[in-house]
Amino acid sequence: MAEAAVDTVDTVTSVPVAVVGAGPAGLMLAHRLGRAGVETVVVDTRTRHEIETTQRAGILENDVARDLVETGVSDRVLREGYEHEGVELRFGGRAHRIDFKALVGASVWLYPQTDVFVDLADARERDGGTVHFGVSGTEVLDVTTEAPRVRFTAADGTRHEVRARYVVGADGSRSMCRDLVPEDRRVRYGKEYPFAWFGILTEAPTSAPELVYAHSEHGFALISQRTEAVQRMYFQCDADENVDDWPQERIWETLQARVAGPDGFRLKEGRVFEKTVLRFRSFVQEPMRWGSLALAGDAAHTVPPTGARGLNLALHDVKVLAEVLLRALGDEGDAALDDYQPQALQRVWRAQNFSYWMTQLLHAAPGGSSYDLRRQLGELDNVVATRAGRAYLAEQYTGWPTRAHD
Amino acid sequence: MAEAAVDTVDTVTSVPVAVVGAGPAGLMLAHRLGRAGVETVVVDTRTRHEIETTQRAGILENDVARDLVETGVSDRVLREGYEHEGVELRFGGRAHRIDFKALVGASVWLYPQTDVFVDLADARERDGGTVHFGVSGTEVLDVTTEAPRVRFTAADGTRHEVRARYVVGADGSRSMCRDLVPEDRRVRYGKEYPFAWFGILTEAPTSAPELVYAHSEHGFALISQRTEAVQRMYFQCDADENVDDWPQERIWETLQARVAGPDGFRLKEGRVFEKTVLRFRSFVQEPMRWGSLALAGDAAHTVPPTGARGLNLALHDVKVLAEVLLRALGDEGDAALDDYQPQALQRVWRAQNFSYWMTQLLHAAPGGSSYDLRRQLGELDNVVATRAGRAYLAEQYTGWPTRAHD
Repeated sequence: MAEAAVDTVDTVTSVPVAVVGAGPAGLMLAHRLGRAGVETVVVDTRTRHEIETTQRAGILENDVARDLVETGVSDRVLREGYEHEGVELRFGGRAHRIDFKALVGASVWLYPQTDVFVDLADARERDGGTVHFGVSGTEVLDVTTEAPRVRFTAADGTRHEVRARYVVGADGSRSMCRDLVPEDRRVRYGKEYPFAWFGILTEAPTSAPELVYAHSEHGFALISQRTEAVQRMYFQCDADENVDDWPQERIWETLQARVAGPDGFRLKEGRVFEKTVLRFRSFVQEPMRWGSLALAGDAAHTVPPTGARGLNLALHDVKVLAEVLLRALGDEGDAALDDYQPQALQRVWRAQNFSYWMTQLLHAAPGGSSYDLRRQLGELDNVVATRAGRAYLAEQYTGWPTRAHD
Repeated sequence: MAEAAVDTVDTVTSVPVAVVGAGPAGLMLAHRLGRAGVETVVVDTRTRHEIETTQRAGILENDVARDLVETGVSDRVLREGYEHEGVELRFGGRAHRIDFKALVGASVWLYPQTDVFVDLADARERDGGTVHFGVSGTEVLDVTTEAPRVRFTAADGTRHEVRARYVVGADGSRSMCRDLVPEDRRVRYGKEYPFAWFGILTEAPTSAPELVYAHSEHGFALISQRTEAVQRMYFQCDADENVDDWPQERIWETLQARVAGPDGFRLKEGRVFEKTVLRFRSFVQEPMRWGSLALAGDAAHTVPPTGARGLNLALHDVKVLAEVLLRALGDEGDAALDDYQPQALQRVWRAQNFSYWMTQLLHAAPGGSSYDLRRQLGELDNVVATRAGRAYLAEQYTGWPTRAHD
């Protein structure tokens, strides 16, 4: 199928690695490879502006924040991010702090994914890396050969072909790269949830110094922050909720009810200037590598946002993948790539479970029984009542630091 | 309704506390009260022989075993029981030990519930306590007054009335006492499970020194012990399984498949001399006290057997209840009884969750997805991989010792 089209291409480029998807996973991979002198071409159907203006997750593991600085992406996370040494679990109308620092010696950074993206896109530009935003007609060809290609129409209308030794599919939760693994050679694991998150941005002062994960009989709420003056909050809603049905007053009433308690805690309200319904699911595709193609981040696996794992897991994938690709492009060849899935997948399934667990722990199942609600409170009691329970949550939330703390 | 019947009674007895149910909870309560000089009458519809020959749970918390000795029931648990300092979680065909002693400084005792019962029944006999086994026509009357009564026909056909200040319903999972709380004043929380346990007793040497909780794609199995020569094992089966469909060969084949793994572990087989299907559910009734009636143990709450909580929780109830009843019978009166539910209920819901969690962690849901199976393995990884994960399980399994280890 490649030959017939070859004459329509305007530009042919050869690089060791072509990357489909210019989100944080794709760009960080290109950055890591670039530092080792390996050239890449990264393509994305979205414009840079589109990616920059889509609100996403906001919590980075300490190791991930450190990597951004130490690999020379940017130290902006240290200057503009906020280090959080814990989170609050709120249930039965009472606050219970999980002190990450004291429990597992780790912290996390409040730093929005859009900022991670901006830092990475700027670093690519600064370092002379090739990134094509706003492309169309992307095709990935010949991935089962040693000469895979990516073809696309650039934003300026020119048709490109990138010839590579390896192609990385970092094209997110609606990945087309993962479809290149034949149906009879792949397994897709998935779980749907009967609820979604209603996310808002509001001009208001901070209501709490750290993230507040609130369980209530009315459903889950998450109180997060962006800056001193802008806050990010979420509440559990129906999967088919429509933002137009939610005037500002109804939003605040709902959020206040979910955090209310005998301690009198109340959210500081402000103008709501963005409203989104975030649907999510649990998903894993195996294998994560097929011939000359490797999948990374959301293309290979997605999680509910409750455990703040998605972005961190994606960046862990590309850390492993960059090392493996460098070995493969060196003396070891394809055999090195065999190490990718085994090294990445254990963390993937542990994060899948953590994300599922946090979701089940805190959300009200529609049609759930009063037993479920009371049992959740029993579980929350178990988690916060002892150091082991708190540390079990803390070590998963902060991302199983590679150093052993066992 | 009481007056009409009064003339048919052969014997009227007055005691401070009447107890319905002569299982471990009822007898231990009577024993604890007896030590403080408070007389009881305990009645049970089952004969002593029936109770003694019904196989039940076999794991005692260290505190529970210690209480049997220290309250003078018997020290047989120390002589004939087996102290277990851990359990094994087996998944992915590999063994992972949870070392209770090292993690939380606690151990458990392998000592069958039937032996606990025998010790308690013998202690009651030795101490001159009144226990009527094999009664019929039990009626509990006037529980909302200060003069409740229990009427029953003794095994010899004589009709008895026990006049008490308080009545305790320790009459098990099919309790009739709990029905005395009016429908509009009680809440029943419950959860059904789409599977049961197939339990066997076999004449075989021990296959493992401690309990083995085995997760497999085929379903759960539990390898337990009775003595050097008799073993107790269970495997997950359909809720409507029929023991007659299970010849010995099929049982061993099923059990072996559930523990099989690359380490070559195999069970030592022997003659199967008892087969039972154990159905279970999660259940809590609130309130646990109604007027002059208090509920204890399975009458108030039941759990799946996976976490070995049922018997321990029942004995915890009666420890709290004995103290509260002694205060109520002393200077404090009814007000003391108000403390029973608050003191017992937090542990009840924590144990509810632990039992649910262990069940979900280890059983294959009929019709469950491959996602669920892989996620379970991710969760088991999370639990065994760090000290916090193992301690989180250990402290719940060993029953939240009252001393803080926080």
